Amino acid sequence: MLLASGVNIPEISSGQYNTVYNLFSLSIAALGFTGIYLLLSQRRVLERYRNALVVSAMVCFIATYHYFRIFENFKASYVTPDKVASSKSVYMLTGIEFNEAYRYVDWFLTVPLLLVETIAVLALARSVAKPLLAKLVFASALMIGLGYPGEVATSDGTRLLWGALSTIPFIYLLYVLFVEVSKSLDRQPAEVRSTVGKLRIMLVGLWGVYPIAYLFPVFGGSFAGASGFVARQAGYSLADIFAKAAFGLVIFKIARIKSEVDDPSYSENLSDAAPVPA
Amino acid sequence: MLLASGVNIPEISSGQYNTVYNLFSLSIAALGFTGIYLLLSQRRVLERYRNALVVSAMVCFIATYHYFRIFENFKASYVTPDKVASSKSVYMLTGIEFNEAYRYVDWFLTVPLLLVETIAVLALARSVAKPLLAKLVFASALMIGLGYPGEVATSDGTRLLWGALSTIPFIYLLYVLFVEVSKSLDRQPAEVRSTVGKLRIMLVGLWGVYPIAYLFPVFGGSFAGASGFVARQAGYSLADIFAKAAFGLVIFKIARIKSEVDDPSYSENLSDAAPVPA
Repeated sequence: MLLASGVNIPEISSGQYNTVYNLFSLSIAALGFTGIYLLLSQRRVLERYRNALVVSAMVCFIATYHYFRIFENFKASYVTPDKVASSKSVYMLTGIEFNEAYRYVDWFLTVPLLLVETIAVLALARSVAKPLLAKLVFASALMIGLGYPGEVATSDGTRLLWGALSTIPFIYLLYVLFVEVSKSLDRQPAEVRSTVGKLRIMLVGLWGVYPIAYLFPVFGGSFAGASGFVARQAGYSLADIFAKAAFGLVIFKIARIKSEVDDPSYSENLSDAAPVPA
Repeated sequence: MLLASGVNIPEISSGQYNTVYNLFSLSIAALGFTGIYLLLSQRRVLERYRNALVVSAMVCFIATYHYFRIFENFKASYVTPDKVASSKSVYMLTGIEFNEAYRYVDWFLTVPLLLVETIAVLALARSVAKPLLAKLVFASALMIGLGYPGEVATSDGTRLLWGALSTIPFIYLLYVLFVEVSKSLDRQPAEVRSTVGKLRIMLVGLWGVYPIAYLFPVFGGSFAGASGFVARQAGYSLADIFAKAAFGLVIFKIARIKSEVDDPSYSENLSDAAPVPA
């Protein structure tokens, strides 16, 4: 069996370098400006839903900070010895390792917060929300913590072992989200029930991308080595954009609809609501 | 046929360097401060039009971020070997490629948002706006995505092929804007109808600059090589300033007029409105 380490790829091509470089910059822009947009849109929802927006914005900003770090780290980790870079250039690993831990630090903070914003926008009774949140936050932190030793492992066996351990809290999390949160779904206004359902599907679908990207080095072939490194960075980055920025916008949409249901003065859809002139 | 690559021009003159350098700085200033102005002007329009202003500001900020990156990248990509720079200096490409992808990442985010702000300021009924927006956003993202492979192509044939493919969603976009959006134009207040018409002309006129700048390397002659590189950067930068900053100000103007029509207390035209002293 090949020793397929995910990190410290000694050499990547110019095309691979540019792909990763541009995806990191895209992540900074998409996450950062979604965060700002969410903060600026607070007044468009009722006060009771504003915390969900603020937490969503914090998630986006924490991720933006880490993508800044990852971007700078990547630029320092890989340089071309060519005096004039071209599409034929090769980028080599320098004395500065590419630090995959930034992602885990980010997830350790943002994944529990994503669950906090989800529960916050549902506006459940405190007696229901509190124990639910305790379970979700604990399981998600454990999931990230157990994944990291596998991410930096140099052997497939170690990667698989920690990956499997990390899957246990992940499955528990899905159980809580689907069984326990479902019970509260009936209490949501009819107008948002399908969007809330979508939110849960998004969580599962997007969070499913991470373990797949994690396993790339184990798959071997073009999923290992330099191309696997690029595929994993692309998978993680795009999953982060969707699971944080797009997810935050869905949270905002739910908050908007619920605000309108709770208080019709929050309706902005005037063309529908305006009386027809006689 | 000449191999007219748009990127990786090995050498540019001092005058060319300064032109591009100053245009990038102009773009940062024009876009950044228009964004701030739009945010600060929110209270001058009715709440229902504020989202159009916030989205316009986000477009300006996303572009500002990318012009910062482009500016820093340009400074690192071209340096003069002269110890004292003069008008006779030559600037040579370094080991850091000039990354044209920043623009595409920017457009990928901002072009759909420009359509969002356009539809937002029209304040159409939700049942009309939603499917319209879905079409426009999808077509615009496809247009940008198909353009990129051609932009970084080293042969004219590849450039033309992707350019042609990218034109298909562009034409569809024009069709939707002109045929479907026109239907809603009659429902706009008489006071803004001509400005809304102008908005659409602006979209088409300005967005038409991009494919022309894109084709510069194919035209050959002084449109290829170093002077073509400068012309393309100038074309893209000026088009960005008009299509994002100036466009955002037109959006603001429409929102102002509509606010005044909907609620006369939003009128600021004191000389007209003030009672004539007896």
